[in-house]
Amino acid sequence: MAKVLLSVLLVLVAVSSSLAKPEKVTKKEKRIPQTLSRGWGDQLIWAQTYEEALFWARSRNKPLMVIFHLEDCPHSQALKKVFAENKEIQKIADDDYILLNLVYETTDKHLSPDGQYVPRIVFVDPSMTVRADITGRYANRMYAYEPSDIKLLLENMQKAKKFLKTEL
Amino acid sequence: MAKVLLSVLLVLVAVSSSLAKPEKVTKKEKRIPQTLSRGWGDQLIWAQTYEEALFWARSRNKPLMVIFHLEDCPHSQALKKVFAENKEIQKIADDDYILLNLVYETTDKHLSPDGQYVPRIVFVDPSMTVRADITGRYANRMYAYEPSDIKLLLENMQKAKKFLKTEL
Repeated sequence: MAKVLLSVLLVLVAVSSSLAKPEKVTKKEKRIPQTLSRGWGDQLIWAQTYEEALFWARSRNKPLMVIFHLEDCPHSQALKKVFAENKEIQKIADDDYILLNLVYETTDKHLSPDGQYVPRIVFVDPSMTVRADITGRYANRMYAYEPSDIKLLLENMQKAKKFLKTEL
Repeated sequence: MAKVLLSVLLVLVAVSSSLAKPEKVTKKEKRIPQTLSRGWGDQLIWAQTYEEALFWARSRNKPLMVIFHLEDCPHSQALKKVFAENKEIQKIADDDYILLNLVYETTDKHLSPDGQYVPRIVFVDPSMTVRADITGRYANRMYAYEPSDIKLLLENMQKAKKFLKTEL
């Protein structure tokens, strides 16, 4: 896929550079439309904002999964790759979760129980309670996951499905 | 376009129903990835959240344009079409604006000076001041625009480029 993209890109560059010659100003490169998924699962339904995600979590009675990441962070990229390619994760995400990925922090301090860093995955109960008890394996960055932690992340997703307040 | 979509849909339904027969469970239809532009200009750079947009407006010293709309609102759809197809609008948006489109209201009351409705376009100065003075032509919904108001919208975009506080 990367190779295909690269060759398409090379063709585009070649075409645009040859087309651009008669013009005074070189045309801007055609941009690939930004997706709400940002590569974490194009087939999943993503909320755009935290407020929207909370509303959905509450009204659909589903837990919310908030993924903080950055496009230029190699750790985020590596986790994203295994997340997007893992069929079990994609299925449980699609079936049971309200999903939000953010490249910019919110004003809600509860979403950064031990600081702001990426990648960081925080679960929120439909009762609006941040599940600070659902953590990864690193004591200094409790909500961080490495690609090798993908099985733990899946287990955590299964765990967070069991709501904190089951009476909801 | 609507007709084309409809026939594509009919073909898809026909194909999927014929393909689905040998299987026990019908496969889900492949979804089109959601874009951040939501059709308001795939070639433009869109902020995801209001906080992110404000940060960009401030740090890049550009005004922010917030478009409130809904996917299932025909007025929003009609305005989106002329917005996305208008080259002057797309150019000024790309060159001079921080852009945000939202299908969910924010908690900031300043973004709804005369109520929450769609479509609604509100300009925010890089100094973080909502430009309540930049309005459309309807007294009861001052920040609404019809497709026929596209020239006024362009003029308003040119007006909002002149910052409220020029010393910034």
